Amino acid sequence: MKNTFGYSVAVTLFGESHGEYIGAVLDGLAPGISIDHDYIARMLTQRRPAGKISTARREQDAYRIVSGVLKGKTTGTPVTILIPNENANSGDYSGMQTLARPSHADFTAECKYHGYQDSRGGGHFSGRLTAALVAAGAICKCALEQKGIQIGTHVKKCGGVSDRAFIDLDADIAALNEKTFAVLDEDRAEAMQEAILLAASEGDSVGGILETAVTGLPAGIGEPWFDTVEGMLSHMLFSIPGVKGVEFGDGFALADLRGSEANDPFRMDEGRIVTATNHNGGINGGITNGMPILFRTAVKPTPTIFKPQNTVDFRSLTEEVLEPKGRHDPAIVHRARIVQDAATALVLCDALALRYGTDWLR
Amino acid sequence: MKNTFGYSVAVTLFGESHGEYIGAVLDGLAPGISIDHDYIARMLTQRRPAGKISTARREQDAYRIVSGVLKGKTTGTPVTILIPNENANSGDYSGMQTLARPSHADFTAECKYHGYQDSRGGGHFSGRLTAALVAAGAICKCALEQKGIQIGTHVKKCGGVSDRAFIDLDADIAALNEKTFAVLDEDRAEAMQEAILLAASEGDSVGGILETAVTGLPAGIGEPWFDTVEGMLSHMLFSIPGVKGVEFGDGFALADLRGSEANDPFRMDEGRIVTATNHNGGINGGITNGMPILFRTAVKPTPTIFKPQNTVDFRSLTEEVLEPKGRHDPAIVHRARIVQDAATALVLCDALALRYGTDWLR
Amino acid sequence: MKNTFGYSVAVTLFGESHGEYIGAVLDGLAPGISIDHDYIARMLTQRRPAGKISTARREQDAYRIVSGVLKGKTTGTPVTILIPNENANSGDYSGMQTLARPSHADFTAECKYHGYQDSRGGGHFSGRLTAALVAAGAICKCALEQKGIQIGTHVKKCGGVSDRAFIDLDADIAALNEKTFAVLDEDRAEAMQEAILLAASEGDSVGGILETAVTGLPAGIGEPWFDTVEGMLSHMLFSIPGVKGVEFGDGFALADLRGSEANDPFRMDEGRIVTATNHNGGINGGITNGMPILFRTAVKPTPTIFKPQNTVDFRSLTEEVLEPKGRHDPAIVHRARIVQDAATALVLCDALALRYGTDWLR
Amino acid sequence: MKNTFGYSVAVTLFGESHGEYIGAVLDGLAPGISIDHDYIARMLTQRRPAGKISTARREQDAYRIVSGVLKGKTTGTPVTILIPNENANSGDYSGMQTLARPSHADFTAECKYHGYQDSRGGGHFSGRLTAALVAAGAICKCALEQKGIQIGTHVKKCGGVSDRAFIDLDADIAALNEKTFAVLDEDRAEAMQEAILLAASEGDSVGGILETAVTGLPAGIGEPWFDTVEGMLSHMLFSIPGVKGVEFGDGFALADLRGSEANDPFRMDEGRIVTATNHNGGINGGITNGMPILFRTAVKPTPTIFKPQNTVDFRSLTEEVLEPKGRHDPAIVHRARIVQDAATALVLCDALALRYGTDWLR
Repeated sequence: MKNTFGYSVAVTLFGESHGEYIGAVLDGLAPGISIDHDYIARMLTQRRPAGKISTARREQDAYRIVSGVLKGKTTGTPVTILIPNENANSGDYSGMQTLARPSHADFTAECKYHGYQDSRGGGHFSGRLTAALVAAGAICKCALEQKGIQIGTHVKKCGGVSDRAFIDLDADIAALNEKTFAVLDEDRAEAMQEAILLAASEGDSVGGILETAVTGLPAGIGEPWFDTVEGMLSHMLFSIPGVKGVEFGDGFALADLRGSEANDPFRMDEGRIVTATNHNGGINGGITNGMPILFRTAVKPTPTIFKPQNTVDFRSLTEEVLEPKGRHDPAIVHRARIVQDAATALVLCDALALRYGTDWLR
Repeated sequence: MKNTFGYSVAVTLFGESHGEYIGAVLDGLAPGISIDHDYIARMLTQRRPAGKISTARREQDAYRIVSGVLKGKTTGTPVTILIPNENANSGDYSGMQTLARPSHADFTAECKYHGYQDSRGGGHFSGRLTAALVAAGAICKCALEQKGIQIGTHVKKCGGVSDRAFIDLDADIAALNEKTFAVLDEDRAEAMQEAILLAASEGDSVGGILETAVTGLPAGIGEPWFDTVEGMLSHMLFSIPGVKGVEFGDGFALADLRGSEANDPFRMDEGRIVTATNHNGGINGGITNGMPILFRTAVKPTPTIFKPQNTVDFRSLTEEVLEPKGRHDPAIVHRARIVQDAATALVLCDALALRYGTDWLR
Repeated sequence: MKNTFGYSVAVTLFGESHGEYIGAVLDGLAPGISIDHDYIARMLTQRRPAGKISTARREQDAYRIVSGVLKGKTTGTPVTILIPNENANSGDYSGMQTLARPSHADFTAECKYHGYQDSRGGGHFSGRLTAALVAAGAICKCALEQKGIQIGTHVKKCGGVSDRAFIDLDADIAALNEKTFAVLDEDRAEAMQEAILLAASEGDSVGGILETAVTGLPAGIGEPWFDTVEGMLSHMLFSIPGVKGVEFGDGFALADLRGSEANDPFRMDEGRIVTATNHNGGINGGITNGMPILFRTAVKPTPTIFKPQNTVDFRSLTEEVLEPKGRHDPAIVHRARIVQDAATALVLCDALALRYGTDWLR
Repeated sequence: MKNTFGYSVAVTLFGESHGEYIGAVLDGLAPGISIDHDYIARMLTQRRPAGKISTARREQDAYRIVSGVLKGKTTGTPVTILIPNENANSGDYSGMQTLARPSHADFTAECKYHGYQDSRGGGHFSGRLTAALVAAGAICKCALEQKGIQIGTHVKKCGGVSDRAFIDLDADIAALNEKTFAVLDEDRAEAMQEAILLAASEGDSVGGILETAVTGLPAGIGEPWFDTVEGMLSHMLFSIPGVKGVEFGDGFALADLRGSEANDPFRMDEGRIVTATNHNGGINGGITNGMPILFRTAVKPTPTIFKPQNTVDFRSLTEEVLEPKGRHDPAIVHRARIVQDAATALVLCDALALRYGTDWLR
């Protein structure tokens, strides 16, 4: 399967940056789920460039749902989301390029598609496609909230500045979901934005780390082999443009711990089995244990920069220097966090539907 | 799908620690692939406890291939591998336990299987099942080598001691594949083993980091969304017991870099397009670019330790102290590396068969 | 998976009769395949009601391809086809009904979707969705023709009138693909149309049998178990509205034969192994043998008729008599044949891509 | 996927006629399902040759369950069934042949596996593998019975002799499940056996038709497109050796009916919506309507016969005459019916688990 993810709840992604539409088909959702357009619009807006840290392209992401919804509720059949590319000009191929932008997908697209790819604006690889993923995920995230499952992501680190850790998960998640620049500590948010602007002023870009918490998930979700919660989530998370690492619980820091430090002792809490610590991020043996899911992704710096870079023309096979032009996005990590929320919601809806049946979510 | 991974080349895993057999069905391999029993046996031996750093259980992993192979070559139909559990005693349920060992899957298994799970020795969650995965992966890894694709993994870090980086990939991979304790620098291997033994002497355990390199893979493998190379590999890698993080190229370190530092400039090398650096681990936009694939996994410390730990009895819902007994494995990272090789080979065979057809591998 | 079929080449279907769009996402096609709009338009026209045997609705099926095609060729990324429902009125729910039309999906939709389904015009169950399937299949069928694989379907039987058997497959398929009412013998075509009009004049409808031939398919496609050619094709064919039976080769007639009559002896033909007869429809042990594939589907009579029928209101649970109104389609078999061609092409493209790799079709 | 079928409940089939074991991995069953060994043994016995209508090979089908069952109940992890091939002699390749037996899979296996296939006794294509499918299906069928879902199949036709139709489904199914030669009317059973013996005496074989009924299935199972109940069942049913046709309800006979004859009017029956007739076999729009599922398969005559047949040697490409030797099975339809029961149970368990969740079946 290529551009489809999930089984009981599945999303299919399509479109190119300069095509007529990007979009998604979200199939398998239970019937009767309310579509909250404000919720979708807010997530789409949070994904879009905003504030001083912006790009030239400011499309409205005026999505339409053209199937699978009736009188504001899902029908149970495929929900199709279309987002027009308003400035698309299907006859203008001037954006086609044969210079491989370093660390972009221009060269690998050429290898895979033999020159037939639409390379304008990144084509099918464009981060713009995440808008469709966000719209689909927003429906799922909203539905999960109705079942008491909350998802929130903050920029844990960006431009060398770290956010504080989660403290009160419920309050923190609620706060994050209202923010466009999702950092728990406002002072650090400001410092991060300064670091981003500094990099931008030097024609450069910055990377960062995103941290997600999920609360309210029942224990017993996931499989011991292959479809572990970690495996399913990471499979999806690596589709977020720029993500090059995923870790659960203490992740790579566990490598330096001893078992006596890394283990999470069990205890009773008001008749419920909980763990005293959560170094394992709510997952043991691939399966949820009822504690919050915690994971982080590493987002590499935006590969588009305003400095000369050595590269090649992949058709003429000549070495060239790429001279940047136009404007760019010096950081995407604060926008990627909303994609991470959406991606997480999509994966969890599928896992829950497989576990509890197709009607569970309504 | 639960215990099956892959599509064109798929592996199905079965068995429990104290059952009659563990095993795997490896389906979809091209016909005519030679089965190198020495190769399989060597990988199985490398996975087993060895040297001073060992456990009580020293089974021979006397695997048998009971289908899909004729006259030493694959037939193209399912290859079934059986590995007997020699000490298995199907009537002895004394190993059944209701005390949840911290950071093991005892409690999550109870949540998922409602008390019907075979908990003896970890049951279906036992690391012992990786022997079957290794046998299946050994067939794939050997076949990939015939096509010029090499896979090698070293213990990058263990017990606070770091190995040197890869230098000459071909030589390093060749050296690693001969080793039982796969560390590039022998001095550091010794230091790691000392650290492991020290932890063991204190009844504790250590974690580590595994680093894998893959050379010879063609450019153009993988998909832009969902079935990215990172996504497919990580989906599988999180099934290796103890893995809690996966990163590609510079991974989490990319979060602290600027674009000008993280980008990999392209250049020509004897008529071939290559990158001058490889911060992206051979993958751009989810697709191989022809450079070596590089990734690391974080392996948490073995959760079995010889110190009293607080826990609960998940049936009586009482808090208890777990008093350890018997022997244990103070580190698994050096054995997990062979599972990582096998897992990688399985994923790559599937991706290559999808790309080039079912006969490509022979 | 619900509304997605196939793996290496996969189609996802969406939309409702009275929604804004119906459509399909066709994913996994090789890059560089030419899109022949005349070909697609001709198949869409052949699927539409035509001549005296028609319905009230005469939409133009003005499809658009909004992704995955550049300069007339596939890019290798998802091809999205949108077909607007021109008369759709999203605010008009007067077509909603709670009377279960006999042998329609009204009642089963209620059982599955708990009242949230869009029942107007059959909603997601509407035969109108086959237009999207036909458009996607037309791309595949056209691509297969470039590789020497021909598909043709005739109305083998309708209204009690039988067409002649295939004689010269290549010529017959070529002739069928030009026809709107696909019957090999024109005299019998006329007799069928008379039978249809007679049924229509009595407010009734007729069923029929469709027979498909596929030539040029290589030997060795398909799997011995589960993904047999018969299994894969039939899985898809039962999605054609009204199909209630599928048979390959002599099909049900084989039940009355002896082995000596049913077996297909092999012989040499210009250095190539062929069979003297083709009672098995080109498939042995689930796998193509290089002879033409032959199969038939049974299409039940259109359930919409103009006679009073007993039924129930599935909300009030009262027995009612359904009094028909408006116009209807007294036969769909002659239009379903174009859906059968498209469905067949989709299945074969997937099977061939799995066998020979994703680039094979270009 | 090749030798794996299903998603939430999946079966993987492996082995060859002359290999060490044939077997199956049944994954995804709910934990806590009782394993009734008598039930499994009875189905395996009914599948085996019996009475005068037999073959030379009379293996005991001494299956073992080597994983996934503890204290007589499923654990929720993969259930692995092994059936030894007692007379297997792995060193004896004298059964290898290059003469393509007409309408067997010898030639297509050669095309697909390029000469590496194990051709002894049909290898992986051998009907013997259905024993593993029957054992896996027996577990499912038994579990479905606990939930009130009954499956029964009779030989509707064989050797030109037809059985009576189903009358009282519950009683008929119960009776069939006790029989080895599953015919409702004993007189006709005798006539069928005479017809089989007559064919056998002439060195020939006969085909037949199997008819299955399923009662107790809830309404609302299945999907409108692709994963229709008909599509899912037929996908599996065509794996039963010799099946060349599948029809639901009145099937091909519907082609000759008018809508007024074929439609199933709804009516109320003790507060429940039912249909007055069942021409559609309990399925409307691909989804169960709560009425019994009814379908038939066409089984071609056993291709092994004792008459000289023209064929070719697929290696030397010479025309030859195949001279039969040994004993054969003049009919398999009465044994295939038990495979049909098992196959049906496997498909339904998967569909029900997807609909209601993984725990539903226990």
